[in-house]
Amino acid sequence: MFHAVILAGGGGTRLWPASRRSRPKQFLPLGGKPGETLLRATVRRLGDACGAAPPWIVTAGSQADAVRSELPELPAMHVLAEPAARNTAAAIGLAAVFVKWKDPEAIIAALPADQHVHDEAVFQSALRSALELARSRQAIVTLGIPPTRPETGYGYLEIGEEVEKGAFRVIRFVEKPDRPTAEEYLASGRFFWNAGMFFFPAVRILEEIERHLPETYRALGEIASALEEDGPEAATKIMERVYPKVPSISVDYGIMEKTSGILTVPGNFGWNDVGAWSALFDYRPVDATGNVAQGLVLAHDARGNIAAADPGVALALIGVSDLCVIQSGNAILVVPKDRAQDVREIVRLLEERKLDAYL
Amino acid sequence: MFHAVILAGGGGTRLWPASRRSRPKQFLPLGGKPGETLLRATVRRLGDACGAAPPWIVTAGSQADAVRSELPELPAMHVLAEPAARNTAAAIGLAAVFVKWKDPEAIIAALPADQHVHDEAVFQSALRSALELARSRQAIVTLGIPPTRPETGYGYLEIGEEVEKGAFRVIRFVEKPDRPTAEEYLASGRFFWNAGMFFFPAVRILEEIERHLPETYRALGEIASALEEDGPEAATKIMERVYPKVPSISVDYGIMEKTSGILTVPGNFGWNDVGAWSALFDYRPVDATGNVAQGLVLAHDARGNIAAADPGVALALIGVSDLCVIQSGNAILVVPKDRAQDVREIVRLLEERKLDAYL
Repeated sequence: MFHAVILAGGGGTRLWPASRRSRPKQFLPLGGKPGETLLRATVRRLGDACGAAPPWIVTAGSQADAVRSELPELPAMHVLAEPAARNTAAAIGLAAVFVKWKDPEAIIAALPADQHVHDEAVFQSALRSALELARSRQAIVTLGIPPTRPETGYGYLEIGEEVEKGAFRVIRFVEKPDRPTAEEYLASGRFFWNAGMFFFPAVRILEEIERHLPETYRALGEIASALEEDGPEAATKIMERVYPKVPSISVDYGIMEKTSGILTVPGNFGWNDVGAWSALFDYRPVDATGNVAQGLVLAHDARGNIAAADPGVALALIGVSDLCVIQSGNAILVVPKDRAQDVREIVRLLEERKLDAYL
Repeated sequence: MFHAVILAGGGGTRLWPASRRSRPKQFLPLGGKPGETLLRATVRRLGDACGAAPPWIVTAGSQADAVRSELPELPAMHVLAEPAARNTAAAIGLAAVFVKWKDPEAIIAALPADQHVHDEAVFQSALRSALELARSRQAIVTLGIPPTRPETGYGYLEIGEEVEKGAFRVIRFVEKPDRPTAEEYLASGRFFWNAGMFFFPAVRILEEIERHLPETYRALGEIASALEEDGPEAATKIMERVYPKVPSISVDYGIMEKTSGILTVPGNFGWNDVGAWSALFDYRPVDATGNVAQGLVLAHDARGNIAAADPGVALALIGVSDLCVIQSGNAILVVPKDRAQDVREIVRLLEERKLDAYL
């Protein structure tokens, strides 16, 4: 009845030089336990909150092998390899087709593969509430994260009436606000962070796709027909042909912002989207020298830094503070924590100069 | 008649992580030309200022092979390998014994192997003046660098009367001053930086060693006797036995500060002791991004940094300034330019923790 779908197709650049084309963020060992990848942590922290069925992973074709070797316990069919990256609306639709084929009554939890959660028991409890709400009301439900600061890097949800205990109507989705707006949101108490976690009956999300993204719906319909008539192998062949042509649009833009009746369940479990190196300072332990360190980091009169080095590499910091200093493979990044987002400028430079060895 | 002796036995740590136990500063490619080591640059910039005789190199036993392969054109005997490091007084005495054996009238230019000189023509002219003065007056002569800033990291010479055109009496040697004192020195016009370059008749320096360092003199005497009676191989055997027992003391402390009648020739040739990473900013060209860079350095809104990376490594700087960011082999250093001297604290930490792989 309940099924987790994990969206692991991202190729983000914000954690360069650790994240590369060949190793996106979800494969980095930044999970809750030492050495644990974000993807593995995402699966582990589900516990039994989505029931006993194994989760489904939607990923890029180029990453499918990495997903399978990271999660060898999954049935082969549960790793859905997109022939082309078409963003989250298509990815969620594709997963809904496969999950509905196995379970027409399926209620799906669609979760990003590359986030951090501090309190996993609270998280699981929120998952259960959201799934139950999606089932009982046949609704689309989100998790809304009570904001703790006027963050300008996240999207927000504005909430309305409480439809039942701990469940609110979503009045609107809003994009990343500017600072004064974010401060208003924080003060108002009526805005949550949009963590990109959605819960819905499979049939319901496909109806919304039909309504708002008809091209995507047609392609998904061809895949679904092949699946029902000839099974997964035939469906995969059809997918290779039709999926690359669907519009590339996020589920937020393509569906959520256009759909009414969405509900939200607040989730106060310490959420972090690991959207930049600086995010590590929010959830990784600070060591005795006052830094967040991974690997052999030698600090002399240096505090408040995030430092990471591969095994076998010594990283020495003297008299610096509030920097991210990251060595990974053949590249090194030095950036103040409050400018960690600008790493994309370096990735752009590398792309411009065709320095593929570092991408 | 004129002979250069280059002191290349240093094992300094101030350019860690590029300088290591197995590769001290003089072997780093920080010379005037791309890829040129400081040692090679020291030999090259002599030109013919010390005459046609090949220079002598005094170095540590562990570095002798590296010196020979760096300077393959030298006669084997011209690389004098100390069985133990006994500082510059002993090293200069040892060289004087060998040079005097070849040329009893020898006038020696004793020069550190790990410095930078900006204007080589002016440098050579100063060398010629100093050697000629050492010859004509049978005196010990230094090069005095007219100070350009109240530097607290150098020793100074106080000068007295001009004994002949462009040659002054040295009244005293002074150690590294504090800032107010350095400012007085700079304002007075009577103080030069002591660059550690000395010129003297071989017989004269041996007399001074006899007077001030009698233990050293006795050991050198044994080596000299073996040399004269049985040749260099026999002398080397004696050296293995007696040299490690001589006092370890610098030529500045052990001889110069105790000797009267020293003269100095001003040398305004842009001198730099390459005593820390920050020194590179004084003599290496600043690139189009406003940084001193070696290797593949990508700068985004980052200026005034010194950045170095091995071939094949990309170093990305975003939004930082006035830092030294140095990757070399298995180690990385990040330190503000004005604290570059503190790198010794990291070396101390590595030693304490017996992390020999990084030393």
